[in-house]
Amino acid sequence: MRLLDIPAIKSMLNSIGLASFYQRLIMQLEDDFRNWNKFYKSPRHAIHYKHGVIELMPCSDDELYSFKYVNGHPRNTEKNKLSVVAMGLLASVESGYPLMITEMTLLTAIRTAAVAALGAKYLAKKNASRLAIIGCGAQSEFQAKAMQAVHSISHIYIYDIDASAMEKFSNNLSADFTHIKCCNSAIEAISNADIIITATADNKNATLFTENSVSSGTHIHAMGGDGPGKTELDVSLLKQSKLIVEFSPQSLVEGEVQQLDASHIHAELWQVIRGEKPARENDEEITIFDSVGFAVEDYSILKLVYEISEELKLGTDVDLIPVIDDPKNLYGLLKI
Amino acid sequence: MRLLDIPAIKSMLNSIGLASFYQRLIMQLEDDFRNWNKFYKSPRHAIHYKHGVIELMPCSDDELYSFKYVNGHPRNTEKNKLSVVAMGLLASVESGYPLMITEMTLLTAIRTAAVAALGAKYLAKKNASRLAIIGCGAQSEFQAKAMQAVHSISHIYIYDIDASAMEKFSNNLSADFTHIKCCNSAIEAISNADIIITATADNKNATLFTENSVSSGTHIHAMGGDGPGKTELDVSLLKQSKLIVEFSPQSLVEGEVQQLDASHIHAELWQVIRGEKPARENDEEITIFDSVGFAVEDYSILKLVYEISEELKLGTDVDLIPVIDDPKNLYGLLKI
Repeated sequence: MRLLDIPAIKSMLNSIGLASFYQRLIMQLEDDFRNWNKFYKSPRHAIHYKHGVIELMPCSDDELYSFKYVNGHPRNTEKNKLSVVAMGLLASVESGYPLMITEMTLLTAIRTAAVAALGAKYLAKKNASRLAIIGCGAQSEFQAKAMQAVHSISHIYIYDIDASAMEKFSNNLSADFTHIKCCNSAIEAISNADIIITATADNKNATLFTENSVSSGTHIHAMGGDGPGKTELDVSLLKQSKLIVEFSPQSLVEGEVQQLDASHIHAELWQVIRGEKPARENDEEITIFDSVGFAVEDYSILKLVYEISEELKLGTDVDLIPVIDDPKNLYGLLKI
Repeated sequence: MRLLDIPAIKSMLNSIGLASFYQRLIMQLEDDFRNWNKFYKSPRHAIHYKHGVIELMPCSDDELYSFKYVNGHPRNTEKNKLSVVAMGLLASVESGYPLMITEMTLLTAIRTAAVAALGAKYLAKKNASRLAIIGCGAQSEFQAKAMQAVHSISHIYIYDIDASAMEKFSNNLSADFTHIKCCNSAIEAISNADIIITATADNKNATLFTENSVSSGTHIHAMGGDGPGKTELDVSLLKQSKLIVEFSPQSLVEGEVQQLDASHIHAELWQVIRGEKPARENDEEITIFDSVGFAVEDYSILKLVYEISEELKLGTDVDLIPVIDDPKNLYGLLKI
């Protein structure tokens, strides 16, 4: 079985370049969303603790099985730890044998941003160029870079309650974007935006801004609200917008739409991509992709990373699965 | 994070000795079953394919989170592959950070056998000495060795449709047991047994033997029936026996008891261990531990293996979780 650790994934991204990797990943995601019905799907398995959550996100078609282990501990940052870390596995459905284990903290940030870009490709205005990001945590730069793959982003407006987080964002992306503006409030950040990404970490029902502050024609990618009791937008904004989700049974528990019911969901993203439901229909409506993260997205990046690791000969072999002459003689393995 | 591969687990078992490892593991299991109510429990997550199943088995208390990835592909052996392979992960609930990844094919065989022994400790006659095993696949020797930890097994009667599997069993355990008899039928094998273990792999509703062939006072450990449509015993035998399961919501779907309903379950094992429900009450009744394998059992062995790997300094460090100065600056990791 192949093991891809942090250095291997960094090596992969450096070889290909993050922008090109995003292009390939968005194509892979689009392809998998288009073939949505081939997947065995289920809401993630989550155990909620007082201070965080630990999740397993399995997904499969008839060829490959994938899952991700991922946590969400918002207060980890107080102890200099990441609030989200992850690892993933890809296995052969034919034999049930694992093919690859990989770090997935970086890959989760990347796939989460690629999903936002895929949504914005269909849901934002064609000429969208001004991006607002509310919340400049670990996910924020990945989001901005991914959005570049589908829209010509000329201006970025950011806001975070932590000024040093905005500074970090600006430093990291100064070579990629010429106009990055740190704002004094969420309202200021979104006032000129074509696309708004909400990516805050607080585990509560928040209202980052109300419908009065959102210009007509805006696309909102609401990714920070992704667990029971963890939302970022208020009900009246949701009600006057076109609401797209990934997988309704999960989104109704975890997404912004947990504040409403299924009747307010316009479509699942795959229906928009397949053309079964309309995407944006004019330059006035407000669209919201209420994204919570779904296991198919992990499948997509794991499949892609596995393919690229073959191409580039990356990763190390680990001896985690017994290789024995007689498959009924597992006990004999102890004697060798 | 620590990685325990096959050589590391073999080294652990060789250092401690399998018999001593079983002693420690049975104590750990007994302790965890006794504290059953501290666990966050759920039925396993399974995706069923035409030719097999892939499962995730998560479990947690307020200190540690564990899960196992495991498949079941009965026809793998035709291609010289194991029908069951597995790997496991242990994580800290406090941070959500993984602590250990380990091979779990060997560990699954070992914990499955230890659970059988724990059940037989409470449910078999005190002086049980004659063991019958139906099905001499990869699991069988582990079962026999584990049973030695709780009962003085003097005679083993085995049966398998594949004579070479019986030969393999005899060869592997000739130094451990002086009386191993290969039988011509399941009926012959069980005719003198105090304890019967059914461990066949076929994915169907089978009847290995009927109630007429089972002597009074026998304890049956029914482990091969462990999925929807995969059973080994017939309804009339189940009805006249005292039926113990691990976790009713899962067993009613996967166990022998899928052929009946909850009213036929005498107890969950933890209730017997805590003394809340009677175990065996006389030397005449037939007891059945309808064991399907439950995530708490994986938790127990993962916790124990993690502790022993600390004691013996086993395993290698793998770089699967980012270590960064500023937890909000995950993007910066790409630049180093």
